Amino acid sequence: MALLYVIEGWDPAPWLAAMRAKAPQRQLRVWPEVGNPEEVEYALVWKPPHGVLKSLPQLKAILCLGAGVDHILTDPDLPDVPIGRIVDPNLTMRMTEYVVFQVLLHHRQHLALAEAQRKHVWAALEQPAACDVRVGVMGLGALGSDAAEKLRMLGFKVAGWSRTAKQIAGIETFSGQDGLKPFLNRTDILVCLLPHTPDTTGLLNAETFKALAKDGPLPGPALINAGRGKIQVEADILAALESGDLHSASLDVFEREPLDPASPLWSHSRVVITPHNASDSDAASLTENVLQQIDRFEREGRLENAVDPERGY
Amino acid sequence: MALLYVIEGWDPAPWLAAMRAKAPQRQLRVWPEVGNPEEVEYALVWKPPHGVLKSLPQLKAILCLGAGVDHILTDPDLPDVPIGRIVDPNLTMRMTEYVVFQVLLHHRQHLALAEAQRKHVWAALEQPAACDVRVGVMGLGALGSDAAEKLRMLGFKVAGWSRTAKQIAGIETFSGQDGLKPFLNRTDILVCLLPHTPDTTGLLNAETFKALAKDGPLPGPALINAGRGKIQVEADILAALESGDLHSASLDVFEREPLDPASPLWSHSRVVITPHNASDSDAASLTENVLQQIDRFEREGRLENAVDPERGY
Repeated sequence: MALLYVIEGWDPAPWLAAMRAKAPQRQLRVWPEVGNPEEVEYALVWKPPHGVLKSLPQLKAILCLGAGVDHILTDPDLPDVPIGRIVDPNLTMRMTEYVVFQVLLHHRQHLALAEAQRKHVWAALEQPAACDVRVGVMGLGALGSDAAEKLRMLGFKVAGWSRTAKQIAGIETFSGQDGLKPFLNRTDILVCLLPHTPDTTGLLNAETFKALAKDGPLPGPALINAGRGKIQVEADILAALESGDLHSASLDVFEREPLDPASPLWSHSRVVITPHNASDSDAASLTENVLQQIDRFEREGRLENAVDPERGY
Repeated sequence: MALLYVIEGWDPAPWLAAMRAKAPQRQLRVWPEVGNPEEVEYALVWKPPHGVLKSLPQLKAILCLGAGVDHILTDPDLPDVPIGRIVDPNLTMRMTEYVVFQVLLHHRQHLALAEAQRKHVWAALEQPAACDVRVGVMGLGALGSDAAEKLRMLGFKVAGWSRTAKQIAGIETFSGQDGLKPFLNRTDILVCLLPHTPDTTGLLNAETFKALAKDGPLPGPALINAGRGKIQVEADILAALESGDLHSASLDVFEREPLDPASPLWSHSRVVITPHNASDSDAASLTENVLQQIDRFEREGRLENAVDPERGY
């Protein structure tokens, strides 16, 4: 019985090498070289083309190799088997690096200082301390709660927002539709780590940016989106950067990826663009996690961090 | 009896306002309006002009209003009274913000990604995780040990170096001349938070950069200096950036400040220049600290964090 990698956009070679090293007894295949589809029990996937998973009659489980499962759930022919999300310390550490970096970039007014550097100007900007700046983290799963905690340790006033109510020590939390506006009203730097679901589509829009705090110690509100591109309305981001509802933004994800070279976001002086690399999936680190999932499934018949198709993540 | 502010380069107004609010009974004066010099018991200073302190016959103590006391100790007519360094959570928090930000900037290859953004290029750089990157912090006082601890919590492999041996939980420590080379040999990102003393003058030089690790997961070693400008040899930094002994640098301090508009550092594509604002002194926060020092001195006849003129900080 075989494991099948169904990967689009990444090189499968390091995944195969890592799996061969850790589980030499497993039969490995790489789509589109499926071999006998009846022999495939587990699909290890990233952005699997629609229909491929349906062609595997003995499939027992699907394991996602990166953060976010939206690309799986949109498959209209998705087989009715458990889907495992990946929650791994390496993936969490990388995301927290990105979030902390981008929060500090806006907090420390790096874009203005870099502009001054280009002009050879010694620019003494007024710099608030972290304890006077309010960060708001949307999404309080493994990624959001770790980022929130690390930002809190650096001194920021951190609050979190999630679909359902959560408690995190030292972090003020808001939840649901009713909690969204009060959460935004107290936020100077907004961090989005939400999954892409029907509920979150387009949530980072004009109305959201309008609700952000306008009385903070920085020149204006900042947005950081490292969740999914479909959560943001890029036209609204550009308009908010003009109106002042946003002062600056860091975007790792986009409505369409890679970002169109013609997008005005690239050359906006107060926007940082990163190529969806906030938290790269590291084959060596994550393969251990995937193997543990398979072992647990074979032993106990269940996956940890299983996707709930109802809520969409 | 009076407190005298002797400040160069900053506006004394917020310091006076903060002190008046907290200690309305104290008589305050601002150099050069000293009044009767016999009445001045405490000098609250930042870069005091040489000779001013000598002119105060009843001076009991000198309190420094920012990190670093080198500008005081170079006064050839320095009175023989205790000097208090400022160690304050607000100052430490700000410096840690700066250090964590600049470490992440080099770690996350921001300069290369910003260059790609300018070209509208979706550049998939290989990105190591923090746990594979070795940061080395020079100087393990209040500032260095806090920065080291926060970097460790983000996942970096952190080591520290100090003049005399120190122990910090979770951090490998090196000390003295013998410990310097092994410390540099294992360091991918070097952070300098040393005070300026005769021993540290010019310590960030060609030999130091040559000793940095060349086998790390990043394109090459990075230097971050938020200590003092006289610790670095700017000609050696520029040469090391060419030879590859350094890949990139963030400099907040310079041999001469403000940095000469003609310095080639400004326009180097792998150098980040900040205008000595890594840790701004916040009048409202630090005035409380200064008052506590004066109260303690009047009660116990001693300062906390007193400068040791022998070691120079």
